[in-house]
Parts: sequence; structure tokens; C-alpha cells
Amino acid sequence: MPGDGDVVFKTRWLSLDPYLSFAMIGSGSGGASWPVQGRVIGEVVQSRSPQIPVGSVVLASGRWREWNVASGADVEVLPVDPRWSDTVHFGVLGASGLTAWVGMTLAALQPGETILISAATGPVGSVCAQIARERGARVLGIAGGEEKCRVATTHYQYDDCLDHRLTGLKDRIAVAAPQGIDVLFENVGAPSLDPALPTMNSGGRVILCGLAAHYRSADPIALTNFRLILRKRLTMRAFAWTDHPDLHAAGRAWLTDRLASGTLAYDETVSHGLSQAAQAYVAMLTGKGLGKHLLQLAR
Amino acid sequence: MPGDGDVVFKTRWLSLDPYLSFAMIGSGSGGASWPVQGRVIGEVVQSRSPQIPVGSVVLASGRWREWNVASGADVEVLPVDPRWSDTVHFGVLGASGLTAWVGMTLAALQPGETILISAATGPVGSVCAQIARERGARVLGIAGGEEKCRVATTHYQYDDCLDHRLTGLKDRIAVAAPQGIDVLFENVGAPSLDPALPTMNSGGRVILCGLAAHYRSADPIALTNFRLILRKRLTMRAFAWTDHPDLHAAGRAWLTDRLASGTLAYDETVSHGLSQAAQAYVAMLTGKGLGKHLLQLAR
Repeated sequence: MPGDGDVVFKTRWLSLDPYLSFAMIGSGSGGASWPVQGRVIGEVVQSRSPQIPVGSVVLASGRWREWNVASGADVEVLPVDPRWSDTVHFGVLGASGLTAWVGMTLAALQPGETILISAATGPVGSVCAQIARERGARVLGIAGGEEKCRVATTHYQYDDCLDHRLTGLKDRIAVAAPQGIDVLFENVGAPSLDPALPTMNSGGRVILCGLAAHYRSADPIALTNFRLILRKRLTMRAFAWTDHPDLHAAGRAWLTDRLASGTLAYDETVSHGLSQAAQAYVAMLTGKGLGKHLLQLAR
Repeated sequence: MPGDGDVVFKTRWLSLDPYLSFAMIGSGSGGASWPVQGRVIGEVVQSRSPQIPVGSVVLASGRWREWNVASGADVEVLPVDPRWSDTVHFGVLGASGLTAWVGMTLAALQPGETILISAATGPVGSVCAQIARERGARVLGIAGGEEKCRVATTHYQYDDCLDHRLTGLKDRIAVAAPQGIDVLFENVGAPSLDPALPTMNSGGRVILCGLAAHYRSADPIALTNFRLILRKRLTMRAFAWTDHPDLHAAGRAWLTDRLASGTLAYDETVSHGLSQAAQAYVAMLTGKGLGKHLLQLAR
């Protein structure tokens, strides 16, 4: 029975996000809480909130199940826009796009600099690359497999993309960045940071955005080349897009404008049916597919 | 035979600095170059530089041997000051003091914040603590042994100092910083950073100044708790004092003023005779003694 101010909504979409692993693995001996609580999009079917009519499409924190109840104050009513799917609000017009925008703002990339982006074809990395390109940088990526690297250079405007599944990544990074790396936009963690650090320029910046490799493991993955951070006098800045509300308006404007003009490439990898959620999640975490990973529930 | 513009000086003092380990260990298969080239203070006995008369006391990059030759353009003539030993220009009035000043400026410590300083009684950490105290922070240190911790609190104005030789460092840090740590001033590396990271506040700053523990080892020492840098949205900034010349004048002024008024505590650990250099160096690197480590050559 919904309380005063609550809305009940039918879950239409689940966002499959790497950070959910923390909750799934559970902290310490506590274990995980099921169903998973993540970001969902749904259609309101019952409302006790005067601001949110039945039929509204909302983005909310919700559980991976067919129905959810939330306080109207805690949900975001999505604008109806025939130009694109509601799911852009999970990704390119939502957290992923704004994460890329905020991180690239903190990176203060200059024309002629070289940036290396890990998880190059992910929903954050793919937008970063297009922002970096606009700013006049040399844009390098790291991705898993030949096909992703092909998409990175043909679709997301990377100058070059290195396949981390092949051997000798450290040496290939050095060859691809003959002027050294000024900015490392890190979405993965030690498996890409360790081989990239030797090619960083002195005084360079590491933007620490995600640690996808580390989310898979309950045990910490160590950073081996840690001392190069001092040797090269780097600044490593970790952030969450939600900590920088002052940057959101400009980010939304840029992303919406580019999306509307068809000049911002993005991809979605969609699975179907609640029964596929676990499998789709693991596929995302292990690098299958491109862009934002979603699960669509039955209509 | 000294060339035009050169000076010949009798070596009086060697500065025993942790960073020299890089050269001693040698990079890759190259091996080390002997005698060690480090910072030395000497007295000019022959000069072909019109600006530097015989009898000048100079600080220069020189080898660990009784005589050195250098270009006059590359040496710093030290001011004669009867208030203190020439050796303050290695330490509290030189690189150590300015390193502390520059690092503390980058840290932007605020009144009421908590700072944790590793290698608390070293030549950098001991000055950092006194700057932090003046800025109204709660000042915590990590040092090796009961005696150093006693000196830290009685001599260098630390509120509390934790002995890393005892077990349970991580838990003791958490107890000593009930409000969490806002700034970690890191002089040692992973052995203090790993146990301190869980107590860092979200949005906190890590000033990466030195990695004394890592210099001892030809193999990298990994940072295990690396992912906490993201989880806590920290900024880790590595620096060298020489990269910030704009901050030197203010630093020299503060240090000189405090030294002249007798309100800046510092220590020197002095060994004697070139034959003791290797032993004295290892003693410094393994945490014997307090403050700046020096070796005095025979007069």
C-alpha cells in the first residue's frame, strides 16, 4: 500500500552499472541484499504524489523486480522526447555522459596534449573521446578485442586504440604516444594504469573515474607502479559526477545539443527479461558489448 | 685542472638523502655510478670564477669524495651566518624545509582539519608538523619506535604519534583520528598509505612527497588499498619543491624567521668520516636517528 506522496511504477528498464558490484559482493561478512537496488526507469501506474501523474516516466533508485514503490520526492520525472529513447537518461544524457563531462572538465585538457582513455568504448570513455577530440587533443584508447578497437577509431573518433588482450600493452602504449601521455582518464584500474604510468609525462594528470577491474574482485587489486606517481609528479584526482553540481548544466547542454544534431556517437547493449539480469550483468562486467548496458523488462 | 669559470672545493659535508637510492640501485641493468653524486657543502680552495672567491662556502651537486670541481654557475654560495651551522642549508633552510613548505601550501590545510604525517620525525615531517600546528590543525604522526614518537609529541608539536613497529596500525590510526583524516602527508609510501586510507575523509587530499620505503627496494612495492582513492574521491598530488619556485621566497622567509626566533625545532644526525658514508646512509634509510642525516668529512 503506497504511502502519502509515494508513486508505484512498473519497471521498464534496469541500468547495469559496474559500481553495483560493491553491493553485490557485500561489504565484509554482511553479504549482498537482494533483489539488487540500482537505477531503474519505470512508468507510474499509481500515484499519491500530486506532482507526478499516472503515466509519467520516472528514473529512480529501485529494485530489480517488476514493480517498485518510491517517494515522489526521490524520483526524477523524465521529459518526453520523441527524438530518443528514455534510456538515454541512464547513459549519454545521464550519469555516463555527465561523468565524462565532469571528468574532462577536471582534466583541463589542452589542444595538442595526448589523452589515454581506458574502457574506451564504454559509456563514459566513448563520450570522453568525443569531448577530447573537440578540444584538439590526440586521443588514444584501450579496449578489449579487435572489434572494440575498430569501433573506437571508426565510431568514437579515437586516433588509435590498443587491445589489452594482446601482449606487450606497456610497450604498445609507449609507441602510440610518442609525445608521452598528459592525461590518463582511468575507468578500469591497475590493469591499465600500471602499463600506462611509464609513458606519462612529468606533471601529468590521472583522472580516476572508475575501477571496473577492481569491482569484480572482493580482494583489492594492488597498483604495482605506484611509485611512478611520485617520480613523475603526477596529480591523481578521483571524482564522482554528483560532487560537482556546478558543472551539470553546461554538461547537459553540450550533450543534448550534440545528441540533437546527431554528432555524438553512443551505443547501447540491451538484454531482455528479468530472468536474464544476472547473465547480462556479468556480460557487462567482463567487457561484452558496447556502450551502456541495459536490461529491458517485458512490456 | 679546473677550466675557466670552475671552482675547486674541499668537501666538508654530505647530505644523506633517501632519493639517492634510485641512483645507487641503478635503473634497470645499468647499475650505479660511484662515487655517489649527491648534495655536498664545501669550501672553495681554488677559483677560476670571478664571482666566487677562495674561502667561499658552497652548496653543490658533488661526489662523495674529499675534493670536487664544479662550474661556478652551478654552485650556490651560502651566506655566512654565525647563528647556525652551514648544514641548515641542506635541511631546515634548504630542500627539506622548502619541501615541507611547498607541500603544506599545496595541502591547503584548514583550521580544525586533521593531518597525518608519515616519517613524522624526519627533516620534512618535523617541519610539516610545526606548520600544521600554526594553521590550527589536529596533527598526527607515524614514526618508528617509542623514542621517536616521544620526540614527535614533546619536540615537534604533534598531538599524537603512532609507532608503526607495533601491530594494528590501521586500527590505531582510526582511533587517533575520530573525525577522520583530511590531509595525509606521505613521506614513506604504501606501508603508511595503505593503513591510513581507510580513515581518510571523503574528498580528502594526499600529498605525495616521498616514498622512503620504496627507495630501499629495486622491485616496486604495490599499493594494496588503491581502490579506496576512488571510493573516497581523494586527490593525490605528487610534487617536488623545485617545481614551485613561486613559493620559495615565502617559505625561506617563514623558515628563517622561525629559526632566528628559536621557535622552529629541528634535529640533525651527524656521522663522521668518508669511511662511514655507506653505513650512515643505510642507518638513515632504515630509520635510525632523527631529522636530517649528514656526514661530516675530516676538517
